[in-house]
Amino acid sequence: MVARDDGPIPRIVARDERATPRTGADDVVRAIGESARSALATVNASVRELSGVGCSAPGPLDHRGGIVHEAPNIPGFVEFPLGKRLAGALGLEAIYLDRDTVMAAVGEAVAGAAKGARDFIYITISTGIGGAIVSDGRLLRGAADTAGEIGHLPVALEGPRCGCGSYGCVESLAAGRFIAEAFGVEDAALVFAAAAAHDPQAERIIDRAEKALGNLAVGLANAISPALIVVGGSIAEHEPGHTLEPMRRAITARAFKVAAAAVRVVPAALGRDVGMLGAVIYARERLAGRDEWFR
Amino acid sequence: MVARDDGPIPRIVARDERATPRTGADDVVRAIGESARSALATVNASVRELSGVGCSAPGPLDHRGGIVHEAPNIPGFVEFPLGKRLAGALGLEAIYLDRDTVMAAVGEAVAGAAKGARDFIYITISTGIGGAIVSDGRLLRGAADTAGEIGHLPVALEGPRCGCGSYGCVESLAAGRFIAEAFGVEDAALVFAAAAAHDPQAERIIDRAEKALGNLAVGLANAISPALIVVGGSIAEHEPGHTLEPMRRAITARAFKVAAAAVRVVPAALGRDVGMLGAVIYARERLAGRDEWFR
Repeated sequence: MVARDDGPIPRIVARDERATPRTGADDVVRAIGESARSALATVNASVRELSGVGCSAPGPLDHRGGIVHEAPNIPGFVEFPLGKRLAGALGLEAIYLDRDTVMAAVGEAVAGAAKGARDFIYITISTGIGGAIVSDGRLLRGAADTAGEIGHLPVALEGPRCGCGSYGCVESLAAGRFIAEAFGVEDAALVFAAAAAHDPQAERIIDRAEKALGNLAVGLANAISPALIVVGGSIAEHEPGHTLEPMRRAITARAFKVAAAAVRVVPAALGRDVGMLGAVIYARERLAGRDEWFR
Repeated sequence: MVARDDGPIPRIVARDERATPRTGADDVVRAIGESARSALATVNASVRELSGVGCSAPGPLDHRGGIVHEAPNIPGFVEFPLGKRLAGALGLEAIYLDRDTVMAAVGEAVAGAAKGARDFIYITISTGIGGAIVSDGRLLRGAADTAGEIGHLPVALEGPRCGCGSYGCVESLAAGRFIAEAFGVEDAALVFAAAAAHDPQAERIIDRAEKALGNLAVGLANAISPALIVVGGSIAEHEPGHTLEPMRRAITARAFKVAAAAVRVVPAALGRDVGMLGAVIYARERLAGRDEWFR
């Protein structure tokens, strides 16, 4: 995807989407490189004309070294130096790599729903669940750079195996991929449709997903106390009544009164492009020398 | 309790313990005032000779305004200006009030197990469960000052009602008061003893408590990524095999590899007096003009 960064919100001028190759990390790097060149070609531009490149990647990763530690959904991504390899494929010295949710959070903070917020949490509810935490104007990183990986907060004492190898993670109960798997279908939309038609199994799965998201929201409100929880991702976008709404209800009913009164749960303002726009805004911020702080 | 602050770790020179009156907030303030004067009297000292007073209180509270928002275990503590009232009872202009776990965390950071750590979480496992989070050298406060209230992270989709009004909180499954209640006794020690003697009901309760603590530990390792989890409180002190051990095992088995490799779970170094020593060290820090930062 190529964007022109000439306003508060960058304009996407070319897109190119491809399925992630399942044949190893080299093929993934090659596919990203080809996708970038093909998008550039449609606007008659070349890599040399880019002011910066941002690569939004699944976590956990090391954003300084550009290394993806584990990516259960992408074969071959174990301690993989994606930043360096992708820069090489594009003929560049360096690119900016960070967790998809960190880039989305930076995008929402600079140009979206979290503008001006000093305490907010970005959550994506999509194929997986992830997030980023900004406390007192500061992006939490932690000792191993995984801070904000709230999809892997366990919210149940048991449950199906999560992609991360654990169980009880909110992701394993409420993310699109796991909602679909629990119902034995490919697409979570089918489960929401079946639940709307009162299929009892679908209703149980969606109810469990809502409870898991409620637990997540209450836990974050109590233990992190954001002023804002910004929720993006395809499931949140299509099913706010089954995501943002149960999160709001749970906070009102179950969080500390002061924490509940201090927080609002709102949809991502950058919409379905939050991840990509976030990467552009993130690259702009890094080029301007800003790094950890987004006050 | 009165301490002489003449070394890295203050020396407690007088103690006075009293049961918390159940007859209202005024009586609690009076009891604390009397307790302080009585402790001072045993060392022939007066309030005027104190360089500072710290009051460790249950959260959620507003540490700047000295107001306790809710304290389910103390009748009459609703939006109660404990800081101002206690200062009045002692004839002082002001005292330093903060959450018990924040004071313990400051104590451990300045003089205990977290010395030099920039990313750590303090957890107390006692009558209740609470904590404080320090990320990149900074104590998290959040929009409503409840950041670090990790006892009220929901780790189960159902469970008994918690003191906070919610359910599924790790406190409601693993804190001393709730372990005892689930077994129908007054003291959690009896439940640990019964479990050791293979009482099946006690075993189930302790197993559930360990699972809840495991979920908490994994969630914190993934989503906050501390380098150190310092565990204090009477239950942790007496039953490390049922608290610190299951937390370590859960992190090793279930957290992200990088997050697990980065974190150690250790007992509080200030031991059973961590809360009181924390309050003294906290008062010293505040008197020296330090506030939010403990690098």
